[in-house]
Amino acid sequence: MPLWKIYHPVGAFTPEDRQAIAERITSIYSALPKFYVGVVFQAVDKDSFFIGGEPADDFVRIWVDHIARQFDDEAMKGRFLKAVGRLLAPYLGERGLRWEMHVDETPFSLWTIEGYRPPLPNSVAEVRWRSENRATAYADGEGAQA
Amino acid sequence: MPLWKIYHPVGAFTPEDRQAIAERITSIYSALPKFYVGVVFQAVDKDSFFIGGEPADDFVRIWVDHIARQFDDEAMKGRFLKAVGRLLAPYLGERGLRWEMHVDETPFSLWTIEGYRPPLPNSVAEVRWRSENRATAYADGEGAQA
Amino acid sequence: MPLWKIYHPVGAFTPEDRQAIAERITSIYSALPKFYVGVVFQAVDKDSFFIGGEPADDFVRIWVDHIARQFDDEAMKGRFLKAVGRLLAPYLGERGLRWEMHVDETPFSLWTIEGYRPPLPNSVAEVRWRSENRATAYADGEGAQA
Repeated sequence: MPLWKIYHPVGAFTPEDRQAIAERITSIYSALPKFYVGVVFQAVDKDSFFIGGEPADDFVRIWVDHIARQFDDEAMKGRFLKAVGRLLAPYLGERGLRWEMHVDETPFSLWTIEGYRPPLPNSVAEVRWRSENRATAYADGEGAQA
Repeated sequence: MPLWKIYHPVGAFTPEDRQAIAERITSIYSALPKFYVGVVFQAVDKDSFFIGGEPADDFVRIWVDHIARQFDDEAMKGRFLKAVGRLLAPYLGERGLRWEMHVDETPFSLWTIEGYRPPLPNSVAEVRWRSENRATAYADGEGAQA
Repeated sequence: MPLWKIYHPVGAFTPEDRQAIAERITSIYSALPKFYVGVVFQAVDKDSFFIGGEPADDFVRIWVDHIARQFDDEAMKGRFLKAVGRLLAPYLGERGLRWEMHVDETPFSLWTIEGYRPPLPNSVAEVRWRSENRATAYADGEGAQA
């Protein structure tokens, strides 16, 4: 969590762009272990990508699954969506690309990393995973919420 | 919303087929702004596509996320699924392709287009987005439900 | 259901590996008709695949949609996740690949195979679909739960 999938026109982004976009996305989730943030880019040919029934070579379609955290209230959602828009604007609207994004929230309890079920938010083990930036075994008590 | 992802065998569809399929899918959502409807095709090699543990070169797997609208009742779901089957039959069963489709419904409140949070269903702003077929700024009141 | 999508580094798996992985995944769902189990592999270039903001060529990212069955309790989830880890270990951790997986549960009522709405779990028709390993027409009563 989160997993970002970015469908984009062929040639829209250089490898350096993709790296920068992935870093910006990762920066949004500063409360989480960095390695929780996965970003997959996929170039799609114009004749395989349709918006409103028309071939699209100027559209970036992003879908995201959130797993580690769920939004508690509407204000947080608004801030998150605004932050994404601000961070990605130089790579999207400012380049003349149209874009759309949607997020789903999926069950924390159906998620593993390296075979481990991730520790609960803000637990001792999550803090350690965050500081070490990798998944390691932890005792039950370390994964529980304080 | 909706986002359609269509995994298909290599060579199953010509570019014209894909265009026609995308238009048919878009036609299902006539109540929505056309540009809400995204369709991404992805050809998958036989040795990367398995159904029941066996390589598949005759199978089309469709997944869909619905965001702008949720189904209120079972009868509507049935009509929607039947309409999809009827519209896509010439490209699937009638060509000897097996197929499967499933839809998820994801949160309206975690969705943006061009950085805008889309207006509520049937609001003044949605009607305008539909007639202009693009996302534009709108006042709070225009995005609320009548 | 289920649909598995496996993002993996280029060259991580041979076609024989992919076949074996798909068979192992299918074996997890022995209660279901085999053809319910779809697995799509997608190789992703290092410069299109980022974990924690860094290019990843040693990471396998799996996402799964479960449709035919929902987990009833936490113990079942734990057994399922453990079974997956055990079956896939020879292709992941034992090869030095990092990996992450998450599952979403999507609505049974928004799902079709060959245009049919699948019969309810353990119904007469599901048992027949399972033994014949294909989707066929069934009477309403055959699709209902016993």
